[in-house]
Amino acid sequence: MSTLIYNATLLPCTAAMEVLPAGWVQIEGARIVALGTGAPPDLPDAEQIDAGGDVVMAGMVNTHCHMAMSLFRGLGEDVDDRLVRYILPLERRFVTPQMVGAGTALAAYESIEAGVTTIADMYYHEVEVGRVLDTAGLRGVVGQTIADFAPPDHANIDAGFTLVDQLVAAFAGHARVTPSIAPHAPYSTDIPVLARVARYAEAHPGVPVQIHLAEMDSEMDWAQRTHGCRPVEVVARAGLLRCGLIAAHCLHVNADEAARMAAAGVGVAHNARSNGKAGRGIAPVEAMREAGLAVGIATDGAMSGNTLDLFAQFAPVAMFQKLLGHSRARMPALEVIRMATIEGARVLGLAGQIGSIEPGKQADLIRVSLSAARQQPVYDVYSTLVFASVAEDVRDVMVAGRWLMRARAVQTLERKKLMRDALQLATAFKAEMHLIDTGRKIS
Amino acid sequence: MSTLIYNATLLPCTAAMEVLPAGWVQIEGARIVALGTGAPPDLPDAEQIDAGGDVVMAGMVNTHCHMAMSLFRGLGEDVDDRLVRYILPLERRFVTPQMVGAGTALAAYESIEAGVTTIADMYYHEVEVGRVLDTAGLRGVVGQTIADFAPPDHANIDAGFTLVDQLVAAFAGHARVTPSIAPHAPYSTDIPVLARVARYAEAHPGVPVQIHLAEMDSEMDWAQRTHGCRPVEVVARAGLLRCGLIAAHCLHVNADEAARMAAAGVGVAHNARSNGKAGRGIAPVEAMREAGLAVGIATDGAMSGNTLDLFAQFAPVAMFQKLLGHSRARMPALEVIRMATIEGARVLGLAGQIGSIEPGKQADLIRVSLSAARQQPVYDVYSTLVFASVAEDVRDVMVAGRWLMRARAVQTLERKKLMRDALQLATAFKAEMHLIDTGRKIS
Repeated sequence: MSTLIYNATLLPCTAAMEVLPAGWVQIEGARIVALGTGAPPDLPDAEQIDAGGDVVMAGMVNTHCHMAMSLFRGLGEDVDDRLVRYILPLERRFVTPQMVGAGTALAAYESIEAGVTTIADMYYHEVEVGRVLDTAGLRGVVGQTIADFAPPDHANIDAGFTLVDQLVAAFAGHARVTPSIAPHAPYSTDIPVLARVARYAEAHPGVPVQIHLAEMDSEMDWAQRTHGCRPVEVVARAGLLRCGLIAAHCLHVNADEAARMAAAGVGVAHNARSNGKAGRGIAPVEAMREAGLAVGIATDGAMSGNTLDLFAQFAPVAMFQKLLGHSRARMPALEVIRMATIEGARVLGLAGQIGSIEPGKQADLIRVSLSAARQQPVYDVYSTLVFASVAEDVRDVMVAGRWLMRARAVQTLERKKLMRDALQLATAFKAEMHLIDTGRKIS
Repeated sequence: MSTLIYNATLLPCTAAMEVLPAGWVQIEGARIVALGTGAPPDLPDAEQIDAGGDVVMAGMVNTHCHMAMSLFRGLGEDVDDRLVRYILPLERRFVTPQMVGAGTALAAYESIEAGVTTIADMYYHEVEVGRVLDTAGLRGVVGQTIADFAPPDHANIDAGFTLVDQLVAAFAGHARVTPSIAPHAPYSTDIPVLARVARYAEAHPGVPVQIHLAEMDSEMDWAQRTHGCRPVEVVARAGLLRCGLIAAHCLHVNADEAARMAAAGVGVAHNARSNGKAGRGIAPVEAMREAGLAVGIATDGAMSGNTLDLFAQFAPVAMFQKLLGHSRARMPALEVIRMATIEGARVLGLAGQIGSIEPGKQADLIRVSLSAARQQPVYDVYSTLVFASVAEDVRDVMVAGRWLMRARAVQTLERKKLMRDALQLATAFKAEMHLIDTGRKIS
């Protein structure tokens, strides 16, 4: 239960964002106990791993996902007004506990292969998500969705809260899986439900709240029409702007709202590819960070962002802020890696445990190779990671001191079985897709 | 010299952009002779390749690159006003024939690994680029740059034209390498030089012209200040808006200019990541295509776009147009693949020979695996290619009937040697980087 990794290009991902050449990390059980640079300590009983100059960095944090939607990957591309016309009918027809288990397993496998060690999920039948994360050895915040549009697992709001109670009971005290309550969005819960969620969160410290917020033009219209204000104010009126709130998307957040959210201790999940693919716009990430908000990187579900891999988000995260600020100097590569690690951990309220390689923290770390032709030469390791690396470059993944992947081989999930389960369901979906009433022809 | 590839998900990349399940292609020598779907023909003397359901598609076309700049990959990130302060001094100090050979070899290797089979290059000592492409088995348009800022290989414009003459003589009649003349940009050549290039092009049919055009705010200012017009008009006044002109970037092209360029038969190279990383803006790709312009995808040099891989461009190409049009329906995935193949070939004036899998065309094709967890399930192969695939998914690459890569092993270049050459030079650059007068501190 003792491991020494040495000869690494070590990125501790702490505030200074240092790069330690010839770095080493000592792990005992689930925790990091020491790190340094130069000659490693003499630990004859530890497993010795020569990183061969590869990057060793904190495991990455995906701050917003719907893992089970991996089974809907790439469906409904290029279709406007998709949530109501396409996604909700699809989910009502196909989302079952079995589907959530199979889709989450595929997503967990993909996440491990990509060096993502912590995932904030919000979906249905969320106990299944927690079970898969537990088996996979991943860390996660699992949010039971509550919504008023008759989603697949609850007919009304009371039933939704019952599911939350079951989830919280199932994972109380779990070392890696944190149960969470996830009101879908202001327009699908409205103030009375959000206020009830706020009371629930008050009564259950340690249960984070996840929500889609200030994401869509139609949401802005709804808030104006219904409450004469903007979505952030709707959430504030419900008493839900509070520490422990994880707000996904946040495209429409102005300076006042950012300051208010920062003061309240809210975290933001930035879904660059998902927002870009939807043509919705660019979230003001730099402005929010300057206001003091923690902003993490997120993939969204695979029906929106297609992959659950933060590498695929890096270039969009950087480019979007450079485009927004009309300057190459905006959002440097180093800041992107900060967002993917320690800042993502802050968003989820987990920065005391994960997000950086520091003595006392959980041993969640990954090894990334920089040896591909497309990555060479390396003048700046952060640039190489952000703009020239892909998920395939991740070699090894450790969570809480346990190897989840070694030399590209996932250790905790059975590929053959989970791929078979996933593809069986996908085949069934294809056969019934014509039965979904989308109100218009889909591709 | 006879090959039969069968059991493929065949994308011929012709106008209809069909997907042929159980597709097959027959290749004789350098050419495609037949294709179809279902049972393949009985060709006992041909090499038989079972594609196992993988995608087989036309090889990809990179319409704008500075291959040798692979050796500068990731340098000068996040620095504004970089061309004058950083790139030009860097090139004056480090660009030699040896550097161009080594950098182009690294770029060629990377391109083959990524399924890019044709590259339009513009740089210095361009005969070296042609030699590397010849050895690598790649196809390319190699453009000798001409500029007035004392670039590394010519002290004045006359000397630049002498290099063009040498290049054209060296590759006249070459089956895969097309020599080209490349005035750097309106602001670095101005009308007299551009007019001389136009006369040269008139006298040398079959020699394409490459230029950076309408790329930068400072270029817009220069054109207004110097000529009282926009850059496209500068090129037009020089008589250079003509068939065979390949215009890179084209961010600042309005509807009138697009129509005029389309009527003249100009092709456009769209450098999404390079433009996005520079914070320069989004090229009006959909508007240009609607005006009838052929627009291809391009990586730019690795100092600007970091990789020479079109997969890394796909999501930005799609997202940028969706953002510009504020709609998910813009730039569907299928159109992105069209741009990467047959439309890119049109941009380079090579659509009669390459860009699609059709009887009589050159056998430039690639095999792409869709079996990674992150790609599954596949509901729409174009969505999977554009949003869920990476260069590592390319398995085999063929140009003119010759295998350049089999099962991820490049056949025509020696990895060990080219990586050693590249890294030796990069180490030397690092040691002297402090000698470059950038006018300000760089990273």
